[in-house]
Amino acid sequence: MKKTKNKILNDPIYGFIAIPSELIYKIIEHPYFQRLRRISQLGLSYLVYPGAHHTRFHHAIGAMHLMQKAIRVLRNKNIKINSKEEEALLIAILLHDIGHGPFSHALEHSLVNNISHEKISIQFMKELNKIFKNKLSLAIKIFQNNYKKKYLHELISSQIDVDRLDYLNRDSFYSGVAEGIVNSTRIIDMYNVYQGKLVLDYKGLYTIEKFLLSRKLMYLQVYMHKTVLSAEHTLMNILKRAKYLANNNHEIFMTKNLQKFLKEEIDMNNQKNLTKNLNYFSNLDDYDIMISIKEWQNNNDLILSMLSKQIIERKLHKIKEVDKKELKQMTKEITKKLKKKYTINNSDLEYLVFSIQTKHKIYVPEKNPIYILKEKNNKPELSGIEKKLNFNKKQNTIIKNFICYHPSIKN
Amino acid sequence: MKKTKNKILNDPIYGFIAIPSELIYKIIEHPYFQRLRRISQLGLSYLVYPGAHHTRFHHAIGAMHLMQKAIRVLRNKNIKINSKEEEALLIAILLHDIGHGPFSHALEHSLVNNISHEKISIQFMKELNKIFKNKLSLAIKIFQNNYKKKYLHELISSQIDVDRLDYLNRDSFYSGVAEGIVNSTRIIDMYNVYQGKLVLDYKGLYTIEKFLLSRKLMYLQVYMHKTVLSAEHTLMNILKRAKYLANNNHEIFMTKNLQKFLKEEIDMNNQKNLTKNLNYFSNLDDYDIMISIKEWQNNNDLILSMLSKQIIERKLHKIKEVDKKELKQMTKEITKKLKKKYTINNSDLEYLVFSIQTKHKIYVPEKNPIYILKEKNNKPELSGIEKKLNFNKKQNTIIKNFICYHPSIKN
Amino acid sequence: MKKTKNKILNDPIYGFIAIPSELIYKIIEHPYFQRLRRISQLGLSYLVYPGAHHTRFHHAIGAMHLMQKAIRVLRNKNIKINSKEEEALLIAILLHDIGHGPFSHALEHSLVNNISHEKISIQFMKELNKIFKNKLSLAIKIFQNNYKKKYLHELISSQIDVDRLDYLNRDSFYSGVAEGIVNSTRIIDMYNVYQGKLVLDYKGLYTIEKFLLSRKLMYLQVYMHKTVLSAEHTLMNILKRAKYLANNNHEIFMTKNLQKFLKEEIDMNNQKNLTKNLNYFSNLDDYDIMISIKEWQNNNDLILSMLSKQIIERKLHKIKEVDKKELKQMTKEITKKLKKKYTINNSDLEYLVFSIQTKHKIYVPEKNPIYILKEKNNKPELSGIEKKLNFNKKQNTIIKNFICYHPSIKN
Amino acid sequence: MKKTKNKILNDPIYGFIAIPSELIYKIIEHPYFQRLRRISQLGLSYLVYPGAHHTRFHHAIGAMHLMQKAIRVLRNKNIKINSKEEEALLIAILLHDIGHGPFSHALEHSLVNNISHEKISIQFMKELNKIFKNKLSLAIKIFQNNYKKKYLHELISSQIDVDRLDYLNRDSFYSGVAEGIVNSTRIIDMYNVYQGKLVLDYKGLYTIEKFLLSRKLMYLQVYMHKTVLSAEHTLMNILKRAKYLANNNHEIFMTKNLQKFLKEEIDMNNQKNLTKNLNYFSNLDDYDIMISIKEWQNNNDLILSMLSKQIIERKLHKIKEVDKKELKQMTKEITKKLKKKYTINNSDLEYLVFSIQTKHKIYVPEKNPIYILKEKNNKPELSGIEKKLNFNKKQNTIIKNFICYHPSIKN
Repeated sequence: MKKTKNKILNDPIYGFIAIPSELIYKIIEHPYFQRLRRISQLGLSYLVYPGAHHTRFHHAIGAMHLMQKAIRVLRNKNIKINSKEEEALLIAILLHDIGHGPFSHALEHSLVNNISHEKISIQFMKELNKIFKNKLSLAIKIFQNNYKKKYLHELISSQIDVDRLDYLNRDSFYSGVAEGIVNSTRIIDMYNVYQGKLVLDYKGLYTIEKFLLSRKLMYLQVYMHKTVLSAEHTLMNILKRAKYLANNNHEIFMTKNLQKFLKEEIDMNNQKNLTKNLNYFSNLDDYDIMISIKEWQNNNDLILSMLSKQIIERKLHKIKEVDKKELKQMTKEITKKLKKKYTINNSDLEYLVFSIQTKHKIYVPEKNPIYILKEKNNKPELSGIEKKLNFNKKQNTIIKNFICYHPSIKN
Repeated sequence: MKKTKNKILNDPIYGFIAIPSELIYKIIEHPYFQRLRRISQLGLSYLVYPGAHHTRFHHAIGAMHLMQKAIRVLRNKNIKINSKEEEALLIAILLHDIGHGPFSHALEHSLVNNISHEKISIQFMKELNKIFKNKLSLAIKIFQNNYKKKYLHELISSQIDVDRLDYLNRDSFYSGVAEGIVNSTRIIDMYNVYQGKLVLDYKGLYTIEKFLLSRKLMYLQVYMHKTVLSAEHTLMNILKRAKYLANNNHEIFMTKNLQKFLKEEIDMNNQKNLTKNLNYFSNLDDYDIMISIKEWQNNNDLILSMLSKQIIERKLHKIKEVDKKELKQMTKEITKKLKKKYTINNSDLEYLVFSIQTKHKIYVPEKNPIYILKEKNNKPELSGIEKKLNFNKKQNTIIKNFICYHPSIKN
Repeated sequence: MKKTKNKILNDPIYGFIAIPSELIYKIIEHPYFQRLRRISQLGLSYLVYPGAHHTRFHHAIGAMHLMQKAIRVLRNKNIKINSKEEEALLIAILLHDIGHGPFSHALEHSLVNNISHEKISIQFMKELNKIFKNKLSLAIKIFQNNYKKKYLHELISSQIDVDRLDYLNRDSFYSGVAEGIVNSTRIIDMYNVYQGKLVLDYKGLYTIEKFLLSRKLMYLQVYMHKTVLSAEHTLMNILKRAKYLANNNHEIFMTKNLQKFLKEEIDMNNQKNLTKNLNYFSNLDDYDIMISIKEWQNNNDLILSMLSKQIIERKLHKIKEVDKKELKQMTKEITKKLKKKYTINNSDLEYLVFSIQTKHKIYVPEKNPIYILKEKNNKPELSGIEKKLNFNKKQNTIIKNFICYHPSIKN
Repeated sequence: MKKTKNKILNDPIYGFIAIPSELIYKIIEHPYFQRLRRISQLGLSYLVYPGAHHTRFHHAIGAMHLMQKAIRVLRNKNIKINSKEEEALLIAILLHDIGHGPFSHALEHSLVNNISHEKISIQFMKELNKIFKNKLSLAIKIFQNNYKKKYLHELISSQIDVDRLDYLNRDSFYSGVAEGIVNSTRIIDMYNVYQGKLVLDYKGLYTIEKFLLSRKLMYLQVYMHKTVLSAEHTLMNILKRAKYLANNNHEIFMTKNLQKFLKEEIDMNNQKNLTKNLNYFSNLDDYDIMISIKEWQNNNDLILSMLSKQIIERKLHKIKEVDKKELKQMTKEITKKLKKKYTINNSDLEYLVFSIQTKHKIYVPEKNPIYILKEKNNKPELSGIEKKLNFNKKQNTIIKNFICYHPSIKN
């Protein structure tokens, strides 16, 4: 690949990040990619962790940096990765999240229906592949796991991929939740390939144990932090309400871009207008959402204005962790209190009291094993880490139930 | 002051920050203060330093945290600070930047004329003082330097105040410019009071030398980074153009809040409608600006759309450091090239080629001395640090001149 | 307690450590305590982790610093700790390890028989109590758990005491084993007292989970690192051999201090000559051991010279983790090879091949519970962390068996 | 060069350090090199900075690690360094300090006369070259600056060599003096070669300014810390006294190794017995010195026992910075007081009162320029940094005078 001269970016986590090739530099400069500067990595988490304003742009660049390290490590262990595969890997990881919409996961299914951000990422990649004259073909192949060397795909997407190494570290760094720090250098140093799989050298066993615990703690303390859940579900409800109003002749402010998605309901699966629709999508970012919410504070629909104000002024719904079996009864009680307090349609009550369920899988060997490579009598031997570490099968999934309701209600 | 129970915030820099009192907690919860979550600390610097998305909110909280430390240190040195003064200090530092508008310094004189952000901060404080029944009176007195103990004001505003200790560290942390790190703990540990002044113990001499160098490097590498200068001056020009168009019957998108300032030209010095105007101001944040710029990309005014696109797609004006005397000739040459390329009014050329001058004062003992306290023969003795450290008088100010012009022009 | 003026020490981990009182300053200055500067914290671990040269002195000072924090936190939660108790706590933690001999744990039972380092610590404390006119009485009472407020003792010695918070962090910092870092600030922030016990606030639950994992990883990677085990067991064997030779008319170099213990076998339990014996003990440090080993390289006893050379030149015994049941057979095989290679008495073979067993208890709720405090329906409720976290009872103890033998043997 | 498999060392500063080749691994394993584990990097500085127990061993390994980085950076800038030169560079930097004796600089001229540690390093290298069959010839050539590519030597020894990048960082890290931290990654990233010289890219200008300040602060706060000066000069005096006594029929304890140097006065310049003498030298380390001092506490020479006790119990000579012109008068006064207090020979007074002068050159462009490389009109242009940065010529050397005297004297 054709190297760039001296293009470097500062990163508080890794120090300096070099842009490795001309093509990659051009992709980064493209407006599709620049848009990621306006997509926050962690949605509304900054309402709890005031430092968490980092963006998808920064994460993508960081993951690419780790990929460079990973390639260097594997080559040192005599795994052949040629220069084309190298550039393809770097492009694939750079673009793996380009299909994220405003506020990342928070609004993933509120704005665009029936399509995951990964699929939109592929559509962007294909579009960029046209623009850059098929130079992204191999990257797409690897990203879609259609390339013979499966471990290249696993560097992008698996239990130990560079994606999560970067985001765990980055989210931990910016939120200040020190428990989430992951020794990414050490894990990448332990990368190896055996029988076509991405595996870890035996010396990495305890590092991976710590990695799984850090990940769990990030889920518990950040990604599923109850105040964040409350804020993000309210955000979803605001979009839902706005969509409803827009489609029912209620006058409502919207940026032009947002209108495309809330009112015209663009179908991103539709192959016909794909280029045009991708452009609409790429015009959409956090600013469209927040400015609309700011305006909606003054909309004459009570629900919409109330919820919008709650986000802007950070007077969020209360949220409590509860047993699943208590949910029904509690919802009933709160509903009663709400009805006493507000004149409100039954169908609108769901905006003011609702339940949330979260799930986190710690490590499920049957589905997504992590392999460790050990020399035994001078012969390599592969085994799932569950054979070396202490996992309690019954508790490999954490499920939590919450009830979430308007702050005016005492309970 | 009445303590809060267990209100803490995560900060990646200091670990945990405790909210020290009920009143302070309420001020933080007020929408005026929550707005600071939507005001970026470093304007458009993130176009160069992708991590620099931190906010005024976070800086204000961080500075308050350092103030708590400072008070503890001074009390340990037998400087009496009573509990009322303590709370006042904490409030004053918390609110010292509340008057900042969108993108902080970048737009300080573009949106609101003839008034500094400090003055608007005072207006907000006075408004909050009404709301919180005069509990902020002492804070305002200290902030305005009307209180007898001058060193309390100096903790908020002086060469060694906690404000700059926080922002240098914070800006360095989030931008990843390691050169800017300041040993704030050490400097605060060296705080002392002598003859009514805030001074430093002698042991802090070399720390302060390093502090001044760090500050200089932050100016050179971040605050006056030439790409940042180019972006922010373009931002100012966009606002200037929009104002011009709005007042000349040109149709132009604007959020309602922005309209107040661009079209109706609210005068924040005017005492008559102050409360109302403060509310308008407090509704304005980065989102109003960015969404407008996004929309303006499609405005039919060529200048406005061109500059707006340049910000969104990060195709910024070129910028070069030049000798002052070269400026005139270079401007002339570039103007010529621009005229060849674009059909453009003479009066509009200033949007496409202009000069920038920056100034940084390293340390000016005549105006803002830093005092160091030494025991000599068991007697305290005060002297300006310039007597102990090596300063080159002639070079205590760094002035730079730049020429900035449309990227289509080769030079 | 009478405060000191400006006595501070630099610590790479905590920044600055203040010496809190005149009495404590004098204790630190006493030769008994200064000796700890010559006692390495981690024995021979530096043969594996070249940075691990930190001392008992530094650990003691660091633990005292954490104790200051702990006291501040508890007082903020309205736990009354008066100024006498404060100083006693600080002294007790400062002196908790003063009874450690050369190379800390490595030689704990090789030099002085039938007595633990804690007991020798108490003897030192009592001796210092005489010197400082009974000002240490309360410290001794707390240290021996004879004081009414049991939680004060638990700050010094329990599953969550400041001792291990400091040593885990310090050992991790100096060895560079990042996995061992412990969020000591966070854990101390979670300290509370309930029903007379030192407990943790509920918010500290996951921090404590990570703490237990970090501790386990430090045991596996540092304290029980197999090369360290090999080196330290060889060190013990050297001392054993030297003792044997010294008591069997073999000429052997020894520093005068070491002679007291190797040849005269001072009994530290003996109350009669305690002051004298303490002085002998306090003259002994790492230097006596290492210089003797250096000299012993040239002793004409083959075993002694061979083992000594192995330490100095770092040609350590091989060591392998094995199943317990394999131990016997392997020892037999290696013995056979050794006999073929060296003319050596049967009774001396144990120096060249031996087994090691290590044990680490992760968390044993029946014996040493860690309590967590939760508010339920506005009432505090205490429970062992095993009710909230996922512990596999069967695997709460890690036992490992090793075989260790002369490096000339191939196996 | 033949690569090693998986030999890595933990380093708290750089993470992991790989041992790059078989030959280098064998050199590290050699007893000559292992000895460096027993040579402290900073002499007696740990009496002031309790964390500063790191060794020459660790520094040598760390500098080798930075050299690996430097080679990678230069190769990326198309500077050709072949694989033989690479290994030679790594060996040369690894061994650059192998000639250091006990306590590094502190005793450099007390034990061995008329020869610098660099010269002894060369003798060790030559000896190792014999052992490793001339594989070190190129390393020696580069170290002695006899190789055509001068910039290779400059990587080992110049104003910006990797040696000082490592020791400044390492000494700063272990002492906890944060002011001394140097951005070594950034400086190495700026390495370049122009006109056969090791230079810095222009972007490194401010980093080098900070580097020079950090270095100055390390001199002022650590290397020339007055308490360290007092301790180390007393150490020198102890050795001087011991030498005097040993050569004047006074009975005095000495380890065999030390005896060679104190009594027999081995001449390391003498080429005749070089191998034998190198072996004597290589048997000498910190332990020989400290154990002797411990024993000398009880020697019947008053001066020797008094000074030795002062080191062991840390009751150091007082030390004050004074004007040069005051020195004579102060010495006179203190001498008078000493004579009143102690019955002591005139010739022995110099042990109890003496002066110290220290010198630090900040940056002397005439002698040791640092060059910066800038593109001007697309042509490279070299200039000394003094043309870009603000240096005050008159103050480029810091000279300090101290008077140092027995702590019993009040002054």
